[in-house]
Amino acid sequence: MNSIEPIINPQSIAIVGASNRPGSVGFATITNLLRAGFKGVLYPVHPKAKSVQGVKAYPTITAIPDEVDLAVIIVGAELVPGIVEEAARKQVKGCMIISAGFKEVGGRGAELEAQIQQTVRETGIRVIGPNCLGMINTNENFSMNASFARLMPRRGNIAFISQSGALCTSVLDVAAGRDIGFSKFISFGNKADVNEVDFLEYLKDDPDTDLILMYLESISDGHAFMKVAREITFQKGKPLLVVKSGRSQEGARAAASHTGSLAGSDATYDAIFYQSGIQRVESINELFHYASAFSKQPMPKGNRVAIITNAGGPGIMATDAAIRYGLTLARLSDSTHEILRKNLPDTASLSNPVDVIGDATHERYETAIRAVLMDENVDGAIVILTPQAMTDILETAQILPKVAQDVDKPILGSFMGLVDVSEGIRFLEEHGVPNYIFPEAAARAMSSMVRFSERLSTRNQRRDLPEFPVERTQVAAIIREKLGDKDKYCMPEAEANELLRCYDFPMLKSRLLRDPSEIEAAVEQVHPPVVMKIVSQDILHKSDAGGVRVGLTSLEEIRQAYDEIIANAKCYKADARIDGIFMVEMARQGVEVILGATKDPSFGPLCMFGLGGVFVEVMKDVTFRLAPMWELSAENMVRGIKGFKILQGVRGNPPSDITAIKNCILRLSQLVSDHPEIAEMDINPLIVYPEGQGCVVADSRIILARPAGK
Amino acid sequence: MNSIEPIINPQSIAIVGASNRPGSVGFATITNLLRAGFKGVLYPVHPKAKSVQGVKAYPTITAIPDEVDLAVIIVGAELVPGIVEEAARKQVKGCMIISAGFKEVGGRGAELEAQIQQTVRETGIRVIGPNCLGMINTNENFSMNASFARLMPRRGNIAFISQSGALCTSVLDVAAGRDIGFSKFISFGNKADVNEVDFLEYLKDDPDTDLILMYLESISDGHAFMKVAREITFQKGKPLLVVKSGRSQEGARAAASHTGSLAGSDATYDAIFYQSGIQRVESINELFHYASAFSKQPMPKGNRVAIITNAGGPGIMATDAAIRYGLTLARLSDSTHEILRKNLPDTASLSNPVDVIGDATHERYETAIRAVLMDENVDGAIVILTPQAMTDILETAQILPKVAQDVDKPILGSFMGLVDVSEGIRFLEEHGVPNYIFPEAAARAMSSMVRFSERLSTRNQRRDLPEFPVERTQVAAIIREKLGDKDKYCMPEAEANELLRCYDFPMLKSRLLRDPSEIEAAVEQVHPPVVMKIVSQDILHKSDAGGVRVGLTSLEEIRQAYDEIIANAKCYKADARIDGIFMVEMARQGVEVILGATKDPSFGPLCMFGLGGVFVEVMKDVTFRLAPMWELSAENMVRGIKGFKILQGVRGNPPSDITAIKNCILRLSQLVSDHPEIAEMDINPLIVYPEGQGCVVADSRIILARPAGK
Repeated sequence: MNSIEPIINPQSIAIVGASNRPGSVGFATITNLLRAGFKGVLYPVHPKAKSVQGVKAYPTITAIPDEVDLAVIIVGAELVPGIVEEAARKQVKGCMIISAGFKEVGGRGAELEAQIQQTVRETGIRVIGPNCLGMINTNENFSMNASFARLMPRRGNIAFISQSGALCTSVLDVAAGRDIGFSKFISFGNKADVNEVDFLEYLKDDPDTDLILMYLESISDGHAFMKVAREITFQKGKPLLVVKSGRSQEGARAAASHTGSLAGSDATYDAIFYQSGIQRVESINELFHYASAFSKQPMPKGNRVAIITNAGGPGIMATDAAIRYGLTLARLSDSTHEILRKNLPDTASLSNPVDVIGDATHERYETAIRAVLMDENVDGAIVILTPQAMTDILETAQILPKVAQDVDKPILGSFMGLVDVSEGIRFLEEHGVPNYIFPEAAARAMSSMVRFSERLSTRNQRRDLPEFPVERTQVAAIIREKLGDKDKYCMPEAEANELLRCYDFPMLKSRLLRDPSEIEAAVEQVHPPVVMKIVSQDILHKSDAGGVRVGLTSLEEIRQAYDEIIANAKCYKADARIDGIFMVEMARQGVEVILGATKDPSFGPLCMFGLGGVFVEVMKDVTFRLAPMWELSAENMVRGIKGFKILQGVRGNPPSDITAIKNCILRLSQLVSDHPEIAEMDINPLIVYPEGQGCVVADSRIILARPAGK
Repeated sequence: MNSIEPIINPQSIAIVGASNRPGSVGFATITNLLRAGFKGVLYPVHPKAKSVQGVKAYPTITAIPDEVDLAVIIVGAELVPGIVEEAARKQVKGCMIISAGFKEVGGRGAELEAQIQQTVRETGIRVIGPNCLGMINTNENFSMNASFARLMPRRGNIAFISQSGALCTSVLDVAAGRDIGFSKFISFGNKADVNEVDFLEYLKDDPDTDLILMYLESISDGHAFMKVAREITFQKGKPLLVVKSGRSQEGARAAASHTGSLAGSDATYDAIFYQSGIQRVESINELFHYASAFSKQPMPKGNRVAIITNAGGPGIMATDAAIRYGLTLARLSDSTHEILRKNLPDTASLSNPVDVIGDATHERYETAIRAVLMDENVDGAIVILTPQAMTDILETAQILPKVAQDVDKPILGSFMGLVDVSEGIRFLEEHGVPNYIFPEAAARAMSSMVRFSERLSTRNQRRDLPEFPVERTQVAAIIREKLGDKDKYCMPEAEANELLRCYDFPMLKSRLLRDPSEIEAAVEQVHPPVVMKIVSQDILHKSDAGGVRVGLTSLEEIRQAYDEIIANAKCYKADARIDGIFMVEMARQGVEVILGATKDPSFGPLCMFGLGGVFVEVMKDVTFRLAPMWELSAENMVRGIKGFKILQGVRGNPPSDITAIKNCILRLSQLVSDHPEIAEMDINPLIVYPEGQGCVVADSRIILARPAGK
């Protein structure tokens, strides 16, 4: 059994800090519990009062004669740690601390929170909060409003969990205004113990919950989060919609690699959400829009949408929005056309968007909606109604749920208005058809459903992580040797290449020359033309130091270049330690791409792919995925960049070897997953050749760092 | 006087088709006129009835004994042309035809509409519609609801004009629900005579109108539209917000140039709107959001926004949205900090976003709002309120308009909710502070105001069109000669270059060789290395035909290349007419950009700028402006591409000569404005050198076509 189950579904609740004083949080909380008609037993705890709001009170938790599942705590912060301890002694299953004044205020508050965490560790009691709004469970067996929210939402199949308590009050307020119901409504505050992962574990199997909405500011345990999220979405097929705020605040970190500088933590979150089947939503308003659709309508099987309207303009607007949000306008079948032609007036528009025109009655609407939704070329429909002179609004509204019964396809309404059409809208919403005042929002919601549906469709694909036979132990040994007892170590290209060679990346032939006398032997293996580069920990910008020469074809040229590079380097920085000169084959020309990886402190290695050169530097046209990853993820990384067409071949160039790129991405994913010491790396450029001709690493950079806690 | 002024502000109205039959449009229209309390005189026209709804009726317009300003026509389409004629004879100033069944249904309907247009041309009577919803004028001297809309909006300073009648009904419905008022509300239907330009001309000077909203599907006269729009925005400073639908339906036309294929008509509209100071809006919902802000609040002087909130989460969400929509978070001054530090609790956040924290009363809010808005680093503020236990919602609402009185900066509210906060929201809206349920929408509206404000700030810049001294007559002569009596003519590169040379574009030295004997003399002028290209109207893809050779350095190489090219061409296409071989200097390497122009049938020449190569082909990273254009437009075209950084210099490359590019854009603008026969052209690439070193045309293509009507 999930250890927070008894707290969410308690048989008995102690309310520590329940109060008779109107206006206090302790008063609001017990009032809410009583008003909601809690099905278990309430035990107000009050130092002096005999009863609170007519319910017998106890001076302490210990004094309660019965078992207590949940203790709701609403007392001054200083008192809280003692009460949690007392609750643990009494074997209360869990506490929910509404009180604020803990970690969020720092100093003494943080100390108090640490004390609570200590008790959790020692006793195993679970704690929700502190600094939260509370928890609402609308299941009829519990009917619990253990919160100080002013409004109790109606029962529904949506769970909402939020890191911000204040946001909860607004969401409840808006939900009340729009008649949206919830199964569970949970504010989890500072996450001293129970966090979003625990709630998701519970909600995953909660039969009352078909759809989960979250507001998040941070994620406590990245891998656990992804695991449970994947189970919810891919296994259970429950949509999980998340608003994650703080995009703009967490900029890219100072980084020694391209990849590191491009990977702001927001890119990490995008990758996490995508890989977990989560729909990321930009605003709470959208969250509501999508929630109505997801919670009430079946998922579309494809992205072909039909639009039925009684007015041209809104039909065009819906079409524009559908295209903008990635939907396709369904091409209606001939038989549908025929039905429409027979039943609609001459001036109606029979192709999608279907315009039943301004004088349409509900009968005409019904014919059109039914014909269109029965069409096998149609995956879902948006029905637009503008209130015109002849429009029978309520009767038309009644048609939508009727038709919906007969087809397993989503129908979204856009009855446009707030006053005249309100009766129709109310009917729609009460009968499971979400309505959007303007058709753009309907198109957007439909698009979100399609995206979720498409993500789910990949769940039956092979789930094994690809694993290449590689020389893992050797790499571990190299890393151990190079990093030594340093905190950080930038591998020179020659060493980085060695690592990549162990993981079978396609490499150019190369040799590190420590003395001019080695040149002749080296040229036997590394055939000219070659590139020569200075190797020195003290020279970061090799070109600036005159430390790079390209296109050297003869032994003589190579010898001369050797001497010149050494001379230049000494001139550039007299005391630079020079480890030698790296001689490497010239790569054939091809399309330059960049692969890279960085490490997120909480989620681990994150891989990047993009087109090289100005595309990565100016256009920032890159994609990210967390490692380790499946083959499909690597494929999607490549296809996900805006410039993907360049790899498909433009301007007379042949298509690039995308399989070879994918292969490198997966090897990269394996490399950084195997070796947590790899803090950042770039393979820049990876030069890609036409289909079947592979690719080759032309330059690489690896930065090692001691992983935290090692 | 504007010729539609008496129709919009009529002293007397004939209602032809006024009816006593409930449910009919004729009944709805006269009922609405009566209910709204029209200040002039109403004359129902009915073939038989003595009165309609108690008002004395006349059998015909002619029978009305007094002058009539406006005839509202609501009879069967067949009868309408006769009535318009009769109205013209009686010297009625204008007709508004609500009846449908005209051009929108095609066939007979289109004929009837043509008849009406004939009467307009012959008599000068003005006609609004047909196929429209009607017109509402809330000015107290008229109080006219000449429409069959179910709802009369309240008076306000916003004019709404719409090409879709059905949309009007929904907009009125939503406006009623949100308590938004209008000065004029006009549906103009098929635009048989009076079009959007006429209404804009009127609204430009309408003292009741501070803000104009439009819904458009097409524009009748591009140049007139731009002229009046510019007067409204740049001269009068009235914001003009437009929803233009049909983005997705009008794809790019089949075109012979890159520019032509990239210039879908939507790009044209974007250019028109931008150049006219119009704010383009994506959806009606946004239109409402922006309208509240624009109509009630002063314009911001800059983009530095402050956020005041009583909850962290929503503050972060607002920050994210502000950044996303291009705003800057204001950096508060030290003195503001000091005021906040003294007056806010320790746990409050004193930097922007300012968090007054959950227990904030209205007094604390007032201190914070006032301090922040008085700060000279702040251009506008968003005030967020979540309904928490201690929040005094109404009292806090009362502060916003109070502070607004003392500062000339926009304040937008985001009192988050629908139920508990509704009283506060109502107070805000009634006192001129727009409210948004979620802070993202507030940030977006603020951003729209900032954009408008920034556009206006350019209005005092020099307005003269730049004009270069060029050989216009010579170009006209060449075009005349080349086009001859053909409908279309593709100029070979040599001829296109000649045209560009006349407009002083920087050209490479070149010679057209018609015979190998000319080579020696040519090389005296065109110094090697050179490029040689076949010139043949029958060979479009020169490279495929082996018709291009580059990097030729010696006389011998050039001679050999000449022979080979001719041989290749004959082999490729035996009967190809060969006009010679074009020999041109090799251009030095530089940054490749593309300039081009195409022609919009209704707006004339449209210029394009972008980075060359894959940037234009794959990323479609281009900007458009209509010609002729001001210097600032050319500047903005260059700065407007996503890859602008490439021109500023990346990867150790120096900044490019942007002045030289601007110069070429302006010359291009002048060229295509001077010569309407230029249907499409590409300068691709224009090779740009580092700052001060200019640029050069490396290839060009010009397609001439006979302009319509010539």
